[in-house]
Formats: sequence, C-alpha cells, structure tokens
Amino acid sequence: MRRSAFAGALVASVVLAAPAFANDSVQKCITDANNWCMQQHDYAAQRYSTLDQINTKNVANLQVAWTFSTGVLRGHEGGPLVIGDTMYLNSPFPNIVYALNLADDNKIIWKYEPKQDPSVIPVMCCDTVNRGVQYADGKIFLHQADTSIVALDAKTGKELWKTVNADPKRGETGTGAVLIVGNNLLVGVSGAEFGVRCFMTAYDIDTGKRQWRAYSMGPDDEVLVDPKKTMMLGKPVGADSSLKTWNGDQWKLGGGSIWGYMSWDPKLNLFYYGTGNPSTWNPAQRAGPDGKQIDQLYSMTLFARNPETGMAAWAYQYTPFDEWDYDGINEPILADIDVKGKKRNAVVEFNRNGFAYTLDRATGELLVAEKYDPAVNWASKVDMDKSSPTYGRPLVNADKSTFLNGQDVNTTNICPAALGSKDQQPVAYSPLTGLFYVPSNHVCMDYEPFKVEYTAGQPYVGATLSMYPPKGESNMGNFLAWDAGNGKIVWSNKEEFSVWSGVLTTAGGIACVGMLDGKFKCVDQKDGKELYVNKTPSGIIGNVMTYGHGGKQYIAVFSGVGGWAGIGLAAGLTNPTDGLGAVGGYAGLNNYTALGGSLTVWSLP
Amino acid sequence: MRRSAFAGALVASVVLAAPAFANDSVQKCITDANNWCMQQHDYAAQRYSTLDQINTKNVANLQVAWTFSTGVLRGHEGGPLVIGDTMYLNSPFPNIVYALNLADDNKIIWKYEPKQDPSVIPVMCCDTVNRGVQYADGKIFLHQADTSIVALDAKTGKELWKTVNADPKRGETGTGAVLIVGNNLLVGVSGAEFGVRCFMTAYDIDTGKRQWRAYSMGPDDEVLVDPKKTMMLGKPVGADSSLKTWNGDQWKLGGGSIWGYMSWDPKLNLFYYGTGNPSTWNPAQRAGPDGKQIDQLYSMTLFARNPETGMAAWAYQYTPFDEWDYDGINEPILADIDVKGKKRNAVVEFNRNGFAYTLDRATGELLVAEKYDPAVNWASKVDMDKSSPTYGRPLVNADKSTFLNGQDVNTTNICPAALGSKDQQPVAYSPLTGLFYVPSNHVCMDYEPFKVEYTAGQPYVGATLSMYPPKGESNMGNFLAWDAGNGKIVWSNKEEFSVWSGVLTTAGGIACVGMLDGKFKCVDQKDGKELYVNKTPSGIIGNVMTYGHGGKQYIAVFSGVGGWAGIGLAAGLTNPTDGLGAVGGYAGLNNYTALGGSLTVWSLP
Repeated sequence: MRRSAFAGALVASVVLAAPAFANDSVQKCITDANNWCMQQHDYAAQRYSTLDQINTKNVANLQVAWTFSTGVLRGHEGGPLVIGDTMYLNSPFPNIVYALNLADDNKIIWKYEPKQDPSVIPVMCCDTVNRGVQYADGKIFLHQADTSIVALDAKTGKELWKTVNADPKRGETGTGAVLIVGNNLLVGVSGAEFGVRCFMTAYDIDTGKRQWRAYSMGPDDEVLVDPKKTMMLGKPVGADSSLKTWNGDQWKLGGGSIWGYMSWDPKLNLFYYGTGNPSTWNPAQRAGPDGKQIDQLYSMTLFARNPETGMAAWAYQYTPFDEWDYDGINEPILADIDVKGKKRNAVVEFNRNGFAYTLDRATGELLVAEKYDPAVNWASKVDMDKSSPTYGRPLVNADKSTFLNGQDVNTTNICPAALGSKDQQPVAYSPLTGLFYVPSNHVCMDYEPFKVEYTAGQPYVGATLSMYPPKGESNMGNFLAWDAGNGKIVWSNKEEFSVWSGVLTTAGGIACVGMLDGKFKCVDQKDGKELYVNKTPSGIIGNVMTYGHGGKQYIAVFSGVGGWAGIGLAAGLTNPTDGLGAVGGYAGLNNYTALGGSLTVWSLP
Repeated sequence: MRRSAFAGALVASVVLAAPAFANDSVQKCITDANNWCMQQHDYAAQRYSTLDQINTKNVANLQVAWTFSTGVLRGHEGGPLVIGDTMYLNSPFPNIVYALNLADDNKIIWKYEPKQDPSVIPVMCCDTVNRGVQYADGKIFLHQADTSIVALDAKTGKELWKTVNADPKRGETGTGAVLIVGNNLLVGVSGAEFGVRCFMTAYDIDTGKRQWRAYSMGPDDEVLVDPKKTMMLGKPVGADSSLKTWNGDQWKLGGGSIWGYMSWDPKLNLFYYGTGNPSTWNPAQRAGPDGKQIDQLYSMTLFARNPETGMAAWAYQYTPFDEWDYDGINEPILADIDVKGKKRNAVVEFNRNGFAYTLDRATGELLVAEKYDPAVNWASKVDMDKSSPTYGRPLVNADKSTFLNGQDVNTTNICPAALGSKDQQPVAYSPLTGLFYVPSNHVCMDYEPFKVEYTAGQPYVGATLSMYPPKGESNMGNFLAWDAGNGKIVWSNKEEFSVWSGVLTTAGGIACVGMLDGKFKCVDQKDGKELYVNKTPSGIIGNVMTYGHGGKQYIAVFSGVGGWAGIGLAAGLTNPTDGLGAVGGYAGLNNYTALGGSLTVWSLP
C-alpha cells in the first residue's frame, strides 16, 4: 500500500507554472510558503503546503499556541488567510471580518461588521456558514450571506466598494468563497432549495462593476455556452443544449447553486466549478414531456470556463436528472497525476453522489469515475464505454430511483444520503504521495418526494428525508486516501461522524483534519496512522490551514459546529427529519459538543 | 521579599478541622484533592489545592489538554466543579448546565437548559454572568438569572425541585453561587441598582423549602440581628440598629445586594458574606434627617451568621454611607494567619473600596485595614484607634466625597472606580507562603450623582460615571501578593487590564489567573515571576481551578469576556459612560478579544 502511494508521487510532483494572466498580487503572495493566500491555498486547490517544520516525526508534540474567538456561534466553515504579518478571518452570519497582527500578540488590527438583515438566516438552507474571505491587490473580499460583495482595504478594513449580487427575498444567498483571477472576482449564488435559477458572475475587483454572468441553465447566451465550441464528453454541446433538457419553463426555477471552492488553470486560463441540484427535489415535477427522466443541464455539472469572458470550454454532468440532491458543487482539484500509467493534466472531483471523477482538465475527457465510499448503491457504476449510448453516465439502480418509485413513496436505504459521500469540505492533494486526502461522509437515507408549489422566496424542496449510517455500521464518516489515477481507496480511517472539515497536507508528510465532535487530528499521509489528536472547543467544520511566522510553522482551524451535518445543534432543531434529514442522523453530536466559534492555532513547543 | 513571604507560611499552614455540622457529602468530596467540590474550592474559600504534579519547575511545559465550548457567548464567571469522573459546568444566561464524563472522552453525560424569560437580561446590571453551580448530596444546584433555584440529580440532570427566590420584574436577579451548609442552601439576591431591599435566604436542599430570610436592612427581626448578641466592633448593635441609620422609608429601597462568594467556619458554625451598596447611587437622596451622612446599615457590610437560624453573630460595615458604589460583596476568606506577630483565626476581605480587611472571624474584631492599591484616594485610612469616635471607619477625603460635592457635580479622579480595586473575582490564599493572591483593578473614576425617581423594576442608579486608569499610568490592573497579617503588598505585577479572573494556588507553588485579553498566566507564588502564558479564545473572567483524573493534574478556566469590565463587548455598548462607566474605560479590550464562551483545560505532556 505504501509503495503504490509513493509510486504516484514520482509523476505527480509537477508544480503548476506561474501564469501570465494571473492576479500578480495573489501569485506573488503564494510564492512565499509562509503565507496562506487563498481559501484553497493555491489556484489548483490542492491545500498542500511546502512547510515541513511540523512533520510526521514531531507532530505528536504539537501544542496549542494561541486561540481566538470570533464572537459568533454556529457553523464556522472556511478558514483564515495569512499574508505576511496579518491574519484575516471571518465569522458566519453576520460575517464579521477580523485582521489580526501576528507580529504583535495577535491583536485585532481592524474589525469589519456588515449590517445584514437577519431575515436572510431562515433562507440559508444549511446553516449560516461562510466559506471565507479572499485576498488580492491589497484588498480583502467578503461574500456576505445577503449576497453583498464587499472589498475592504486590507490594511485598514475600510470599505472600498460594495455590490449586491442577488436578492435574499427570492431565496438567493451567499456562502461560497469567491475566486480572484486577473482582475475578476468570480462568485456564485445559492438558492436551489428556493427555485432560484443560479449563476456565476464576474465583478471587476477595482470597481465592483459586473463583467459577465453565466446562468446554470437557460438559453445559450445566458448560460455562456458556445454550441460549436463548448464540449461535453468529446462532442460540441450543440444549440439550446440546456433548454432541450428541461420540460417547458421549469428551467426558470432550475436551481444549479454554486457555492463550492473553485480552481483555475493558468496555462489553459480556465477556471473550474460545479453546479448544484435542479429544483425541486421532487423529480416527478421535473420529468420530461414524455413523463421520463430528462437531464436538466447544466445542473450537477462541472464547468471549465474562461474567467475573462465566462464562456464555457467544456462541461460534464455528473448526475443527470438528479433524484437525490447530489449537488455537483464540490471543489475541482487540479493535479498532474499518473492515470493508469499515463501522465495527465487532471481535474479531480469527489462528488456528493459518491463517485470520484478524474477528467482531463483541458478537454473534459472522463478518465476515471469510481466509488470512493463502498456503501454507494444508487448507481452501479459510471459507464466508461465510449461506444455506449450511456457513456459517461451513472447507471442508476432502479430500486433507488426516487423518480421511478414515484411521488409520495419513501425510497429507503439510498447511499449516500443527500449530503453526499462528501459535501463542501475540501480535499487536499499531496505531491509526496500522489494521493488525495478525503474528508468523507458515510451516510444513507430514506427519501420521499412530494409535490411542492413554487412561491418566490419560499422553500421549494419537495422531499422528506431521514439520514443514518449504512445498515449494520455505526461510523458516519471516513477519512481516506484516494488514488485518483486508478480510482482506488489506499487507506481509510473510520470516524464516528462525517468528516466535515477541510484537509491540509504538508511537505512534512502529514494530513490534518478536524472532526464534528471537535477533535483535531493529524495522520501520516502514507498510511493514515493517527499521530496527534487534540480536542477543540466545539465541533470542527472549518478547513485546516498552515502558515509560517517568525521562523515557526503554525497549523490552524476553526471550531464551531454547524453546517448541514450540524444544523440540528446550530439552529436548535430537534425533529429528526428537520435539516433535510440531518437532525436525526447527527443527533449523537449532542453527546459531544455544543455551539462555538473560535480559531485554534498549534505549533511545536 | 521572599523571606517575609515564607515567614508567613510557617504559621499559616493550619488546615481548618472537619466540622460536625458539615454537609457530609461536600466534606467527603473535599477530602479527595482530585476533586474540586465547591466554586470556592473549600469552605474557607482559599482556592488552594494540594495537587502538586504541576509545579514551578514544570508549569512552563503546560499544554492545552482539551477544550469545551458552552454554546453561549458573553461573560463566563465562575468555573467548573469536578467530582470523581464528572465535571459540572454552567453557562451565563440562559444558564445551561453540562455534566461531562472525564472517564469517557469528556463526553456530555447530560445537559440541562432552563427556560428563562429573556426579559431578565436588561435587568442584570453587569452582564448575564453566573458564578457557578454547587454540589451536595448527589445534587447539582443552579441559581438562575431569574432567581429560580433548581436542584438537579447529579447523575441524570433530572430536575428534583425548583423554587423561585425573587422577582426579576422588580429588578431582582440571580448571579451568585449558592453555599451549602448542612442541609441548607444559602443564596443572596441582586438588585441594588433597582432599589431592591436585598436578602439572604436559606432553603432546605432536599425539598427547596424556605428556612429563613435575612434582609440587608430593615427591622431587627427581618435583618435577623439580635440587639444584645449581634456584635459590631466589639459592641452589641442595639435595638433598631439598621432602621436608625436610614432616613424615613428609604431602607425599603435599601439595596445591599448579595452576590459574592461565601465561606463558612465549621468550628464556629458561622458563614460569611458581604452586602452591596445602598440604593440609590445618588447619596443626596439617602442623607439623614439632618441632611448629613448616615450609615445605612447593613449595606456594605460583612456578616457572620449562623447558617441554621440566620442570626447574625457579628457585622462590620466597610463603607458607611456609600458615595461611590463600593459594594462590600467580595468573598471573605478564612485563614489562620500571623497578624502582627500573633496567630489569629482571621477572615480576610479585599474590598471594592480598595482596603484589604483582616478581622477575627469569631468576634469581628478589626485587625488590619490597609490599601492594597496605592492609587486609592477616597479615604486616607481606616481609623484603627479603638478610643476614637471614628474607630473602624474610613476617613473620607472630603474632595472625593460625591455627597459633599453635591448632586449634579462631577467629582473627578476618585480612586478606585465604582467597580472597585477588586470586584467579585476571587482571591486565592496559599499556606505555602501565607500570602493572598489578588486579581485587582487599578481604575479611577469621575462620578456625577443626579436625582432619580424610584419605579419598581426600573434602574435606580442616579449617577453618571467615567472610568480610566490612575493619572499618569496605563495599567488598569495588578496581580499582587498580599500579606494580610501586616497589610502589605509583597509583590505586584502590572497588567494592561483589570484582572477579572479568580486565582488558583496550589501546593506546586504556583498561582494561576486569567486576563481580560484572554491570556492565562501562572506565576511563582514567591515572587510573581511569570512561568507560563497561553492565549485562550476570549477574555477570561472565570475562576481558575484544578483537578486530578487518571493520575494526571489538570488546570482549567472559562474564557468568555464580559462582566462589568467587559460589558461594552458583551452587550455591544459603545457610549463611553454606558455600563456605569466601564464601556469607555475598557474600550481597549476591543483590540484584543471578541465574545466567546469555552473552557480550556491544561495538563503536562
């Protein structure tokens, strides 16, 4: 097992070259490994740091160096940035931003507290989370819950500009981290649980002026697909590629939320992101004119787009005609890896539907699609036969089809549950091993679709869910290492709860991640051996990061339970089917942790 | 300096003998040094633990062992109890109580969440704090913000009984820790800022049935003073001792809140507590019939009472006719110490008014009264001349008399400020050195009294305050060692902010305390040398405690900024004179910390 892991590393250590179109300030920031310049660490979203002061030999000696409470409770996703002497971090709603002085006792340099209407809270489907601020050109960019985007002076916290991306009154909210490429801020919107036709938008980072918008579904000129040039599975998408896959006007309520972490390839000048479920969750209401399944492009889709124009170079739909809420929003990770013996410039995505996909990131060619959770049972496999009419599509097990079983029928024991084999919690890649370190869920569900009427700003879900671990098992999570070139689990550690925290890998050979019960763990990348465990104040759904300061390496993560998995605790819900089924599934969390909101920072003595 | 400190220790190591009238379960609990059975550690309120695994030689190696978020923000005063394998802790309003299993990963065994009307919050003068649960006879006792007292089954968290002590609609609230002596639960009430005539009450711990009540002022049979037997400064108090010191019916709005930690002497069977300010803060409205100062007994008074009958054995008034809000509620500490060459069974109190008092705890004889903050300027000294008509009274500097200067006149630069040279944050005593370790404030004020009308349940304060460090100085706090037998500071460490956390002393020779900026510190008892510093998530106003489990010693403290000093942060106030002047005084806290609420637990590696 160790050998195969390291074999991958031999061909996987190519670093993405510095680009011509980059945002220079971000590129320059990233060259100093002491910094953590982006939520994803780098444009490839690898979450791998070359810092190695903390390593497999000494990580057991980690100590809490300092801590900081954000002053806000509920789910703390995302994490801090570090640029030179300053750490930037932000809280869930009301999205307070802090700049801390690492050179002066971690004092608060400035604090920015947006005024937001709390009426946005009930419109946020899965807790009041926020996936973190971003940095470029001496500015800190905040994407607020109410979809406002604010540029702050990184030195003073002064508001430089503010623009409003969407409208919470229609169910449109903001939780995702933006991506800065060149002079564009790229930002999605959430709302598929409210019948919103969601979109990706680019704003000028100096002025906040809108540059382009690409909807997840609709006419070609609104989706920004070129019928002849935008490719899908090796073929041009053709005219009206999205509209053709919807019945009537349902696309106008089409969903396709965008709220996961994004990546960008500087050579190809393509950025990558995924879209969420089609609305509603009741598939019967989305059936085709013939009463049968219909794809509903471009929901559940991985897009490769030009960041300057927004035009899609290629697209790949993970889950056509979704019947389970298997959003395709998870982060696409760029890595040059060995795929079945051949070096590929790959994009790798661990989908909510339980399959891990490896594609060629220039062309969208599907290279690998395998289950990264053995429990997955909604589909037998993804058809990899290029000559097959179902090429590139999941082969759905009919008994797990909530559509075929029908409206008002409870389809039981579907794996994974709606929150997926992995949700937004980002994976890390390590060039040391060539492996991906996956914080995963191991959860199944019952799913009963029902008819729902659309009212703007009101929930448009149309399904009742229950969640639980796979039958006969008790662990609801696995922390695992994945060989994306061969589509195989290399090692897997059972965890009592879903691992809802983003992973850090470092040149020290460690992979660190947080647990929903509040434990922070570092393991050996090679074999998953637990090397350090420490209990933080509350459950961890934040992403582990590292930085260097004053000659010392630090590792940090938010603790503050919440998010979809922790929504019962976060919002005080007790009905098991509340939280779209998560309340019952994660009820055991009440035995471990309570709400919190603080950053814990470790270092060696 | 070291020598004098240790000289004290030679005569100060006598441990209080086990009593006949004790609550057996508490006494038994205390005999195991691994436990922390009372908020005050022991009935003498010494906060000294004989655990010595962590000591001056190795305390620098402390590490964060585990942490726990209470799920509640704002000021976390008090601290946890540990009894065997279980830790009990509670949050500020809404006063959630948790039992954690130290033998099983610190999991939550049970959680008790009282339903309280949030309308009590604005009636709480100085944040939504609570000074901790208490234990006896397999029960955990919670004194809620709304003055309800609840007995919970320590094993299950099940409510055994509940009684209502007072009425928040009249401004009566509960923040203090109760004291259990024998079968009685002893509890005070807050409300002097609302014109409440406050009281001490005893309830049966098995049934919650009221046993007796002693008001802080009023007729003898309501104050429970015996004209002939209750002594003050060596003389019986005489008939109507309280009523005679009030003008007309003002005593009915008399104040005298009781919310500090209490102590009990098992041999004498006397328990000790102090009372707060007379209402209103505008002294002109409380002047005598002759328009002059009048004592307003028993506000600002140390009481020694029989816990079974409530009858007062003796009383001593620290600050007759208060003109500065120098509440006398601070904890009386019992210790057998060398007083000017003679061994005394003493009670020692560090008063808000800046004087530290040493009295004979059997008789109330005043032995020592000296300033423990050199800045104190409202009185020149306490008259110790037994033949003087002002014996035992502070000699007030007329220019600092807010009464003599008059209503609507701003008396400036009074030291200490209203929140005192020390507030509720409890002192620790160490028999190793014979010294008291004092978390102190170093703050002055401007005070402008104004006329205020009484309306039940409305603030009845009648003064505007500003607070600031003493002129020419920048530190607002000192952590100091005090020789109570000689009335002298032995060493003193400057701190930027008031030290608003309770101290722990141990047989390891260390004294540990938290800071308002979030730092936790351990120093050498001998000389105050800082041996360990670690930053917790939020400002510390909790009390440091220690316990042993599985052969390991742990030290723990709440972090969660708030209380009177942190009320600006806690309640989001920004007007400098808000929070009775604290908002302006402690505005600098905003540069260090934000709201929080978690327990940090340290141990050696």
